[in-house]
Amino acid sequence: MASKNSIIRNRPEYIPNHIPNPTYVRILDTTLRDGEQSPGAAMTCVQKLETARQLAKLGVDIIEAGFPCASKQDFMAVKMIAEEVGNCVDGNGYVPVITGVSRCNEKDIATAWEALKHAKRPRLRTFIATSPIHMEYKLRKSKDQVLETARNMVKFARSLGCTDIQFGAEDAARSDKEFLYQIFGEVIKAGATTLTIPDTVGIAMPFEYGKLIADIKANTPGIENAIMATHCHNDLGLATANTIEGARYGARQLEVTINGIGERAGNASFEEVVMALTCRGIDILGGLHTGINTRHILKTSKMVEKYSGLHLQPHKALVGANAFLHESGIHQDGMLKHRGTYEIISPEDIGLVRSVGDTIVLGKLSGRQALRNRLEELGYKLKDTEVEGVFWQFKAVAEKKKRITDTDLRALVSNEAFNEQPIWKLGDLQVTCGTVGFSTATVKLFSIDGSMHVACSIGTGPVDSAYKAINHIVKEPAKLVKYTLGAITEGIDATATTSVEISRGDTNHPVFSGTGGGTDVVVSSVDAYLSALNNMLRFY
Amino acid sequence: MASKNSIIRNRPEYIPNHIPNPTYVRILDTTLRDGEQSPGAAMTCVQKLETARQLAKLGVDIIEAGFPCASKQDFMAVKMIAEEVGNCVDGNGYVPVITGVSRCNEKDIATAWEALKHAKRPRLRTFIATSPIHMEYKLRKSKDQVLETARNMVKFARSLGCTDIQFGAEDAARSDKEFLYQIFGEVIKAGATTLTIPDTVGIAMPFEYGKLIADIKANTPGIENAIMATHCHNDLGLATANTIEGARYGARQLEVTINGIGERAGNASFEEVVMALTCRGIDILGGLHTGINTRHILKTSKMVEKYSGLHLQPHKALVGANAFLHESGIHQDGMLKHRGTYEIISPEDIGLVRSVGDTIVLGKLSGRQALRNRLEELGYKLKDTEVEGVFWQFKAVAEKKKRITDTDLRALVSNEAFNEQPIWKLGDLQVTCGTVGFSTATVKLFSIDGSMHVACSIGTGPVDSAYKAINHIVKEPAKLVKYTLGAITEGIDATATTSVEISRGDTNHPVFSGTGGGTDVVVSSVDAYLSALNNMLRFY
Repeated sequence: MASKNSIIRNRPEYIPNHIPNPTYVRILDTTLRDGEQSPGAAMTCVQKLETARQLAKLGVDIIEAGFPCASKQDFMAVKMIAEEVGNCVDGNGYVPVITGVSRCNEKDIATAWEALKHAKRPRLRTFIATSPIHMEYKLRKSKDQVLETARNMVKFARSLGCTDIQFGAEDAARSDKEFLYQIFGEVIKAGATTLTIPDTVGIAMPFEYGKLIADIKANTPGIENAIMATHCHNDLGLATANTIEGARYGARQLEVTINGIGERAGNASFEEVVMALTCRGIDILGGLHTGINTRHILKTSKMVEKYSGLHLQPHKALVGANAFLHESGIHQDGMLKHRGTYEIISPEDIGLVRSVGDTIVLGKLSGRQALRNRLEELGYKLKDTEVEGVFWQFKAVAEKKKRITDTDLRALVSNEAFNEQPIWKLGDLQVTCGTVGFSTATVKLFSIDGSMHVACSIGTGPVDSAYKAINHIVKEPAKLVKYTLGAITEGIDATATTSVEISRGDTNHPVFSGTGGGTDVVVSSVDAYLSALNNMLRFY
Repeated sequence: MASKNSIIRNRPEYIPNHIPNPTYVRILDTTLRDGEQSPGAAMTCVQKLETARQLAKLGVDIIEAGFPCASKQDFMAVKMIAEEVGNCVDGNGYVPVITGVSRCNEKDIATAWEALKHAKRPRLRTFIATSPIHMEYKLRKSKDQVLETARNMVKFARSLGCTDIQFGAEDAARSDKEFLYQIFGEVIKAGATTLTIPDTVGIAMPFEYGKLIADIKANTPGIENAIMATHCHNDLGLATANTIEGARYGARQLEVTINGIGERAGNASFEEVVMALTCRGIDILGGLHTGINTRHILKTSKMVEKYSGLHLQPHKALVGANAFLHESGIHQDGMLKHRGTYEIISPEDIGLVRSVGDTIVLGKLSGRQALRNRLEELGYKLKDTEVEGVFWQFKAVAEKKKRITDTDLRALVSNEAFNEQPIWKLGDLQVTCGTVGFSTATVKLFSIDGSMHVACSIGTGPVDSAYKAINHIVKEPAKLVKYTLGAITEGIDATATTSVEISRGDTNHPVFSGTGGGTDVVVSSVDAYLSALNNMLRFY
């Protein structure tokens, strides 16, 4: 069961071909690769770097930073992360492995190596599909051709000077097992040190996936020299369970994403897998444990939610807004008598400050020091300039709202701390709308060079007319892909957060997101749009 | 694997103490009871009745309609559902069992029976906690006292004339197994016909929960005369997997909620459990199958999302917006060559009309018949008055937006078809806001008696000032609990849906939700607030 003591920091120094602790489970986080493949979740280079830094703080063993061959931007992001996060050794001598995916060809692998080699512990990672349907329809290759390609490409990766090589059999859950034993045996001989066994389409039942891992362990020649890795998709809601079963039957690397984002229904959730091991590793999972510092989970979840623009449902396990709320009278009664009646994990274990702290806190007379103290209690260590930014936003909100709660503060911090110097900045905004007459907006923007620009427009509503007025000034083609707004705190004068996603054109262009917060939905919508525009302009 | 043929309608006429088909799995839907326990998800009587009708269409075996003892409103809702949905026999002679939960005391059980007995197939359901922590801290009863209470209350339920009795051992996953065998054996002797084995706190690992079911099956005296039921919570993201494992080891009733809503991180998801069985029942789960008509899943999911106000994350398995989207180039390439490369379920199987139909469709010159035809193709059978309502909204949107997509239409239908005659109706709205000067709103409302009322207010933003102006007229204490707004379609002139939740006061009051749609976020926010206010006024 969960306890403070169950958060174990017992990380082995990972050396290929060497397994230091048989119950230690490595976490590969692929938020920046598979997670970023979620429709509409494209991040900027800077957002990726920020996320990678946070993943390192969280204690992730292997950070998958991207797909270096996908575009020049992807390459640059992986290279930046390899150079910076991949060389940042912490007080315990820990530095994460940095990897990036490449298809099974020389060009992809060589490009990936160019990006990754700057890390202290780089890992090359390649994959090829092994299921009949993928080989026949997608690859149009025979088994022998696939085998040959896999073997040669692992050798090629070795020839570049890389000693940490991960090979994945795409769609393994639908592949012929005998073929899997064969291809894994061959790539181990060729130099692969980690083997991914993905359930690419999310079809496996937990017992079935566990048996697949057990069978590969029992039948693959040389398997004792490699680490088996799970990679499960959530199309039937079973990704977390499959990952846990995989670990039970011998996988010692689990591939997950923060908030479970990813293609379609996403990947196994980092927080669910890690907390299941934290909660049940000792008592029922044979001592399985990770090196994750779980108290950073909630903060990381919020960061990824913001950067990816993929909002969580309130009942998302562990990190959803309701995950630790108890509604019915029976449950509330039980909770008052003993928290253990309905709670198996302390919210504090994932970094959640209890709702008791959510009721008071700061008012408009509070000063910078009080704000800084409270932010530190909430786990935010901000630079002076960032505190200053939050402080002025805090004052503006406090003018309009009697009580500033911790939830408000978190919204303000996420607004301020994760943003950079804007290319376009809002001066003033004036809007008229309703059911009578036209919606009209006038905006005043400041460019990064300090010049002032004013424009007005009519539109189908206040947000539409304001966005059109901005477009008149910025003159950059931007298509609104998604627009969401959620009041994150209670009360009619609550602070609302708006998120927008835009792209330069059709679906082939990357999507950029931006967020704005405040008590006026139209103003926060404009802030969000400008933030997305700034992200887009920085990218191109 | 999934195919049209795997949707089997092979429903046994369920008779207590009789198991007609050993691989048939009953579905108990508890969206209206455990689902409604989600923070902020309180529904009105009418919404509950609508949902129950939809659950019957879906082919749910047992509809848990509520907790009759919780309040007068809950009692009325259960009674209405028992009377109407519980007596609506379809063409195949099918009528769902109606149940409602009651604590283990005579008052609760007698009250529940008063509400349920009007159904053709009523089921009494009671529960008591059996885990050491619950018995000691919550119940403050010994094992013997719990056993005695359980036995007596099942007998009491029998004495009321009910022959279909379900007994649940709350927190079974943390209970002593020997005690479970004993208490289940005793209640079977006393007349219980179904036994719930809940993982109340969501702590069980799938293999562990499967073993619990297997052990109960092997060791409980008289178990061959009862149906075992799973009831799994999702605190670690394992509810669906645990439910499937339960079925694998002998449970023949699975308790689920639409969208997986419920206390904290919610319950096992209806759609995940049912589609896992549909997809893998034949090939790997020993022929397990349900009587669910899966093509109604998506529509039901949208209805529950709207009524509960619990919005789904885009990567929610099966029913999230991204569940069937493919983003990366590799995946898109595979999909173009063969859909089976990355898709295990046809979206049509859950009632999703493919995105190809999402691009065009109707423009502002289209007439009523074209609209009706398209709505029918999308699966909506609306009454004439409802089509008329959608038509005028459609015209209003088409004036402002060039293309009306299927997604727009769905938003409009959900707006129109699920609403009733309003108590307060919006006449006009005029708003001024921005960063310069005050936010001011003027509203004109019509009361149900036709009288006109006008008021104005300033506020912290356009929505706040409009809501305050409405409050001046309606004079009903209403606290905004939650406010969310999501543009559900692409493009800067998209139709946005706003959802609000309000309550009359502190957390002891039920929460009411309302939705509004249109191209103006402020107008749709006002529509949503009025709709929530109307729901609240109808309730009290």
